[in-house]
Amino acid sequence: MKLPYSINLAIDELNKLPGIGIKTAQRLVFYLLQKKQVSLDTLGDAIKNLKKDLVYCKKCENISETDICSICSDDTRDHSIICVVSDPLDVIALEKPDVYKGVYHVLHGLISPIEGVSPADLTIDKLIERVKKNDIKEVIMATNPTMEGESTAIYIQKKLSDTKIKITRIAQGIPVGGDIEYADEITLKNAIKGRVSY
Amino acid sequence: MKLPYSINLAIDELNKLPGIGIKTAQRLVFYLLQKKQVSLDTLGDAIKNLKKDLVYCKKCENISETDICSICSDDTRDHSIICVVSDPLDVIALEKPDVYKGVYHVLHGLISPIEGVSPADLTIDKLIERVKKNDIKEVIMATNPTMEGESTAIYIQKKLSDTKIKITRIAQGIPVGGDIEYADEITLKNAIKGRVSY
Repeated sequence: MKLPYSINLAIDELNKLPGIGIKTAQRLVFYLLQKKQVSLDTLGDAIKNLKKDLVYCKKCENISETDICSICSDDTRDHSIICVVSDPLDVIALEKPDVYKGVYHVLHGLISPIEGVSPADLTIDKLIERVKKNDIKEVIMATNPTMEGESTAIYIQKKLSDTKIKITRIAQGIPVGGDIEYADEITLKNAIKGRVSY
Repeated sequence: MKLPYSINLAIDELNKLPGIGIKTAQRLVFYLLQKKQVSLDTLGDAIKNLKKDLVYCKKCENISETDICSICSDDTRDHSIICVVSDPLDVIALEKPDVYKGVYHVLHGLISPIEGVSPADLTIDKLIERVKKNDIKEVIMATNPTMEGESTAIYIQKKLSDTKIKITRIAQGIPVGGDIEYADEITLKNAIKGRVSY
């Protein structure tokens, strides 16, 4: 059966999104076909206008509607601690209640020679400048504990080694609700190494 | 962290789609944020224009770009056999090579008292009229073997019982590559009952 052009186009476009295969794309399109035109317009416009009013925060490089984001302009937070993350999604994760009260710096990626991402492609220079120019007490490296995350963290740590600023790395270990039985050996090693006293 | 309005809107809208939870919606939106504006426009327009040039085929009620769909206007097909399905997606599934060469009738749903879908909400009356007015030899009931699918099939079969037309139901049994060990008892019963000789 030759599918109508508009259906094929929508399937192809949805199929380009991560985690949406051809079958899921088909299902979504045939679900949308049952919806009223106003629902399609709302969804379509939401996607088209997604980036319209967005800028990068001039301080922390996070996505924002204003030149300085809501976190950087919040005086109740501790501006002397910077938490370095790779993506805005990590900021959302860390912004759950009572997790962290400092400010952030978003790198927009991780150093990855395989994917051709060099330090110059990230906001590392801006971070170094920001740390050196302001009265910063601590920089927390909160990149993922993957190969790329670790090497990016070490790269930044070396760049800041000539300062007196405390540089820390988020703890690695068994997550709450996790199972020691199924943890890999590097995680276990780090959990033992990083043990804390009661 | 207060997310920008446009991001929240896009997350909410994607979250309305079936199978897309809040986490997946967030991931998709932050993926889209990295894309160029032209990609967002293409996807957004594909969704908005999805239904623009679509109509229902006047014969089989399938989705079509023309008054009579490509299947109903194909003279090489057998127009005396009608396969009754619930959705256009079922037509796509049956249109794989060498599966079926007759025509279809799309019900656009199944009778479901729980969801408030009565026979009048479907295209059943049109099917009965079509079957009685044309020279039809066989009607194949190809609704899913679920409670709703079975009752819809039986309802239509009863409506057509005053005609001499052959009414059949798609076979139930173990799918190719399936495992008898894990098949449920009703499927096994149907597989035994519907056994065929070599």
